Formats: sequence, structure tokens, C-alpha cells
Amino acid sequence: MSGQAVKNVGKEVQLCGWVASRRDHGKLVFVDLRDRSGIIQIVGEKDLNDLRLEDVVEIVGVVKKRPKEMINPKIPTGEIEIEAKKVKVLAKSAELPIDMGQPELKVELPTLLDLRGLTLRHPKIAAIFKIQEVIIDSFRQALKRLGFTEFQAPIIVPAATEGGAEVFPVKYFDHKAYLGQSPQLYKQIMLGVFERVFTVTHAFRAEPSVTTRHLTEYISLDAEMACINSWEDLMETVESLIKEILAEVGDKCQVELELYKATLPQVGEIPRIRLREAQEIIYKRTKKDSRKEPDLSPADEEEICRWSKEEKGSDFVFVTHYPVKKRPFYTFPDPKDPDFTLSFDLLGRGLEWVTGGQRINDYENLAANIKKWGNKPEDFELYLQAFKYGMPPEGGFALGAERITMKILNLQNIREASLFPRDMERIDQRLSRMQKKK
Amino acid sequence: MSGQAVKNVGKEVQLCGWVASRRDHGKLVFVDLRDRSGIIQIVGEKDLNDLRLEDVVEIVGVVKKRPKEMINPKIPTGEIEIEAKKVKVLAKSAELPIDMGQPELKVELPTLLDLRGLTLRHPKIAAIFKIQEVIIDSFRQALKRLGFTEFQAPIIVPAATEGGAEVFPVKYFDHKAYLGQSPQLYKQIMLGVFERVFTVTHAFRAEPSVTTRHLTEYISLDAEMACINSWEDLMETVESLIKEILAEVGDKCQVELELYKATLPQVGEIPRIRLREAQEIIYKRTKKDSRKEPDLSPADEEEICRWSKEEKGSDFVFVTHYPVKKRPFYTFPDPKDPDFTLSFDLLGRGLEWVTGGQRINDYENLAANIKKWGNKPEDFELYLQAFKYGMPPEGGFALGAERITMKILNLQNIREASLFPRDMERIDQRLSRMQKKK
Repeated sequence: MSGQAVKNVGKEVQLCGWVASRRDHGKLVFVDLRDRSGIIQIVGEKDLNDLRLEDVVEIVGVVKKRPKEMINPKIPTGEIEIEAKKVKVLAKSAELPIDMGQPELKVELPTLLDLRGLTLRHPKIAAIFKIQEVIIDSFRQALKRLGFTEFQAPIIVPAATEGGAEVFPVKYFDHKAYLGQSPQLYKQIMLGVFERVFTVTHAFRAEPSVTTRHLTEYISLDAEMACINSWEDLMETVESLIKEILAEVGDKCQVELELYKATLPQVGEIPRIRLREAQEIIYKRTKKDSRKEPDLSPADEEEICRWSKEEKGSDFVFVTHYPVKKRPFYTFPDPKDPDFTLSFDLLGRGLEWVTGGQRINDYENLAANIKKWGNKPEDFELYLQAFKYGMPPEGGFALGAERITMKILNLQNIREASLFPRDMERIDQRLSRMQKKK
Repeated sequence: MSGQAVKNVGKEVQLCGWVASRRDHGKLVFVDLRDRSGIIQIVGEKDLNDLRLEDVVEIVGVVKKRPKEMINPKIPTGEIEIEAKKVKVLAKSAELPIDMGQPELKVELPTLLDLRGLTLRHPKIAAIFKIQEVIIDSFRQALKRLGFTEFQAPIIVPAATEGGAEVFPVKYFDHKAYLGQSPQLYKQIMLGVFERVFTVTHAFRAEPSVTTRHLTEYISLDAEMACINSWEDLMETVESLIKEILAEVGDKCQVELELYKATLPQVGEIPRIRLREAQEIIYKRTKKDSRKEPDLSPADEEEICRWSKEEKGSDFVFVTHYPVKKRPFYTFPDPKDPDFTLSFDLLGRGLEWVTGGQRINDYENLAANIKKWGNKPEDFELYLQAFKYGMPPEGGFALGAERITMKILNLQNIREASLFPRDMERIDQRLSRMQKKK
């Protein structure tokens, strides 16, 4: 592997990888070889002449220290190189339809996705998903340290439990089932088992619109905790979690962040303001009046983030107390102001990172709300059991992995932060090119 | 929390949890309180009198060392107890429909699942999923140490790519999509990006039969590695992976294993035999002739495991070289015997734990096979790109998390090893009780 170190100088090694670039310097030829550990420079003669980008080669060679004056600390090929002795082509690549050998991959989004089987290999694209792996992993590790147990939420669900038409039906033998819009009900059931739980799962929304911030299938990082003393415990947990995730990304992804010239947002003390206060602030700053709206618009979210940065020096802001009618049936109403809920969104860099809140843990209230929201209690049998047989005060929250990835790297479209993005127009291929079926 | 230690003796603490059992000893009342860290004994007087199983209480009390003669090392309440000073009921439980207070939960499978929101709380049932968490986590950790990158495979797929009718259709806006039968194609695409990859995902099979070893939705632990020297590299990786998983379970789940009196299978040098040899052995041992069958039946799998244990002293056996016609289009044929493939199943305790093999990495062969297997190449666009633009010799394997859990604990039915099992007859509730819809 190319993870060769200076200590191996003089040794013979065998490498296998993809040709990431080739430079002919008269008699000498230089090849950058890419494998799981990164990129290393191969130096050789005519054997390397016929190699094309993305050819796969096996190389036997000797590890050499690179001349000091040749070491450019800004390129990742490091302090050593391999002097090729034997070169064996394991697989030839067809001619590339785009230029993969430059530091930037200059293609438009549709091409980027139409050629996903190739474009993901570009180091700057691959970097997005190294960061995403670290985000997900640090979510796991941080919660485990806090005594949370990981569980696997099911994807196929018996009913469209969060309400709304934005749900994908599944033909389940002779029955109709659905793809889960969130693991919400299952994580609440699991509280009775482990008190604190989380899951890394996929959630599905049949969003009938194409925006830069929605996917029909996304990675949901979901946590729930019982025995809370107050709903503010939840925001404290979110705050420490985001802090840990960003610290881990900063620690483990320096090279990847550098490719995007990305700086991480800072997490200090995060301001907490009510929705109605946020709307008042936005009105004062912009004269745009959304003070009676039940939610913030995308433009409002951007504005309140600007306010938080300018006035509070914070890259993040908690917006709390969304109205009952904008939140799902299980959201806990504020006892002091029952039209509003003990719920919150964490906004950062103009976008929602986390959504959460306290839940109704009283069985009777919950059962009544299920009906009030137009659902059938028989679709919630296992869920209601969890409350019928004793449930402490509890709450939870969910993070979208693609959104966090997007905002850390300042990507312009959430599709860039999804390996194989699905939307109204695409499942791998463009749907317009596939046959319509009912 | 109940994770109180001897060092806290004399201190006042506050606990929150569920009543797991209550014993009245005249004036004194003993309650076992359950929370995320386990079970602890509470001692009190009349305050505890009214508590029922699964009530949720907040208790303020003082940590006491238990009298030496009272310490039973076989029960998990440990060396300390809490003398209750204040007891506050946070949530009452309804009367329990089953006895939750005994070491064994004596209910039949349908009841176990009909009451899943309650039965999962029983310590012996919860233990199954603590072990499953460790299995999944150790799969991750072991592969990361070997340089594998974790990625998220999509669930919604554009075509029934592994062939067969056993696929669930999804109504995707105006199109028909499917639930992925495995992350196979995506993990192969990801090889070009990271060389070694794995994913923890859900896979879906519309199995039209009800058996003790099939679920329609299951947890698939999937890995793929490029730049292999031989397909035997894959079996070596599987061997070391299973060894690590079992070692971690043995290390971290002693209490849970003890609840089931479970002993872990031993992984020594695992015998490797061809399918045809296995069938010959089975024929000699049982006189049952399956020597022309393309696969092992469940009874055959049990028999060959018995042989391996008796003749080779191994709890596991690799069966290799399944016929081309029984394996998917991407399986690598044995160059020396092209009707058979460089594929393997790892069997243990009578059941398949892992399936894997080398894959065809040559673009032309692969494209030809897609057609030969009756698929449309246009459904494989991104997948074929990964091979068109250079793919080294590669292979991979998949483990079913529920099967491993089941076999470690000697559970009789795979449904017991799934939190919310889905099959032809059930999605949470029994489908027979739901309305039929087309």
C-alpha cells in the first residue's frame, strides 16, 4: 500500500492502485498512484509510458527518499517516492469522459451525478465522504460516552405515522406499507428498554419539490433520552454533541477541510430565542413581517443566523417554542403557553442542523393527540404500549448528516453531500430517461 | 443513576427508573429499580408500598453497603443499595398483561411480538440487543483497523438488480422503484473511491414463506475489498473478523451471555471444503443424496456443521465453489472449473453466517453477464462506470446481524433477534388485523 513511510527507505514494496496523474519528463515518467491510504509518487521509465488515468496497476519498486528540494509540503505525495522496477496493468480504464487529473473537478451538477461511478473517485469529491464518515462516527462515540445505546430502527413501517402526504408507499405482499419518515416512534419505544438510545438510519420524505436542501432519502442521526429534568437538558446535550462532532472533524479531517478551504463554525454559548422573538428581530432588521407565521422561512433562517453572528458572536442559534400546530402530535406543549411547544431547532450558517424537543410522556394525552391529529390509534399499538406501561419525562433530537456535511464544507447543494442522491428527478439515473410505471 | 459505586457509600443520590420488582418484607419494602446502567436495590418503608411493576419513580436516597451475608454475586444488584428518603412517582404503569418480574419471560412468540413495546424491557430480552449492538460495533471497529472506510448505501434502488421476484416495489412519485435486496452494487462502486469499504445497512427480501430463519427486513453487515491477491484473502479476512466479533462479545457481554447460559463458538483454523465435497461427505454420513443439488438444504447445512465439529474440531466450516447458476451475475467463475465460482459460505452451528466471494472485475465480462442473467444494462449505469474506468481484482462478503445474534444465544427463531421483526404476517402488528390494500 502507499502508506509507506520514511522508515521503509531502501526496501522493496508491492503496491496496487489507480493512476491519478501522469507527467512525462523526457526519459523519466512520474505517476501519482491512488489507493486506500492516499497518493504516492512512482518514478519510472518507459514501463509507465502507456499508463492512462484510472488504469489499475500493480507496481514492485524500491522506496526512495525524495530530494529535499523536491518536497512540496502542500502536495500529499509526501517525503518518499517509489522507484518502479516491475509494472503490471491489472485493469485498463476506458478513455475518461471528463478531466479527472486536475485539483478541481470542473463539471456541472447533473454531470457530476450522471457519472457518479467515476466522479466519486476524485480526491476532492471523496473528501466529502471521509468527513461524513467522521461526522457519523463522532455522533456515535459522543453519545456512547453519555450512556446511550445504539439500536437499529426498521425502515418499513405500517402507517404514515408522522402524518402528511409526503410518504412513499411500499407494496408489502397484499398490504400497503410505507417507508419510515423518521425513526421517532421506535426510538421512543426503545427508551423503556435502555433509557437513552440513538440510531443511525435512513429517513424518507416524498418531497414533491426540488430544492438545494432536500433529499427524498437522507441519513438521520437520531437520539432520545428519558429521565430528563427539563427540556433544556436536551439543548445542553445537543450543544455538547455538536461541539464534539466539530472537534473530531477538525482533528481528523485537516487535509479534507484544506481542499475546500473550509473553516469550522465555532460553538460557544449558543443563544436561545423563542420563535416569536426571532420573528420580531427579523422584522426589526429587515422590515419583512413574518411575525404571525408558524415557522421560519429559509430567508428567515439565514437572517436569524446573521443576527446571531453579528450580535452574539455565535455561529449557531437555538430557536425554540414552535407552535403546537406546526409540530407532530407527540410534541410537549409549554405548560405556561400551551399554543407553543417545548421544542427547538438548532440553526447554523443559515440552515437547520438539529430539530428536537420534549415529548408527551403521558399515555392518555398521547392517545388523545393521536386521534386529534387525525391518526388511527390502532396504527400505534406498540408505540402506545411504551407509554401505557410507564414512561418518564423524555425528549430527543435528530441531525441530518448531509446537511451538516454541506454546511461544514459550504457546499451549494445538498446533493453534493449525498453519495447517491435521490430526489424527484433522480434515483442514480435521471428518472426522465426511465419508463414511467404505476 | 443506578451506576452507583461502593465509593459513594454515605452520599445522597437521586435516581430515576422503572420498578423491575418489589418484595414486601413486613415493614421493609425492597424494590429493584431499572435504568440505563442496570438494576439497583432500593430499601424503604410505606412510600414504596404502592409501587407497581413498570411504574417510573424518582428516588432520593442514601447509598449503603449491603450486609455481607446479603450479597448474592449471581444477582446484578451489586454490593450496595439505596435507602429511600423521598419517592416521587413520575409515571404510573397500567396493570401488566404478563408477568414481567420473573427471570424468564414465559410467553409464546406471537405474544412476545404483539407486546413488543413492553416485552423488550425484560432484562433477558433486552440482553439480546445489547449483544447485537456489540456485534455490529465490533464489525465496524475490526474493519476500520484493516483500513476499510464506512459508507452509507441507499435503500431506494432503481431496479431489482439481484434478479428474482423477491423484491418490494416502492411507488416513487410517478415511477416504480424498489427496496435494495443488498448494498452489493454500491459497495462495488465505492471500491474505486476508497479501495476497502463497508456499510451497516438494511436489506429487504420479499420472502413469500414464513421460516424460523428469514426476515423481510434484516441488518446486513457488508464489506468489499479491492486489490486482493486471491479470493482466499477474503476468507482470511472473514476468519479474523468473526474471531474479533466473538472476542468482543465474550469480553463485553458476560452478564448477557450468562442469562442464556450461552457459550461462544470457537474459531480455530476453519476447514474449507467445496460444495461437491460437502455433498459427498453428507451422502456418506447420511445416505441422503444431494450430490447434484446446486446448494445445501437447511438439513445439509446442519449435517456439514456436525461433520466439521466431529471430524475437524471446528464450530465453523467454509463451503466453497457454488455453481455459477446459483450465484448472482457478478460472481467470479473458477478459471479451472468454470461451472463453479470462487465463492463461499461460512457456516456455523448449522446456519450460514457469512456469504461472499470474488467478483468479476472485467468490464466486458460483467456487461455481458448482466444481459445473460436477463437484466437491462441501462439499469446498471453507475455500477458499470466503476468497472469501465478501471477496477482491480476484488471481492467481498456480507453477514446477517440477526443470524449471528441468534446463533450466539441459541435462539430458536430469528424473530427473537430482531427488535421489530417484519415478515409476511407482521409489521409491528399482525397484518391479518389490518385492512388489505392494493
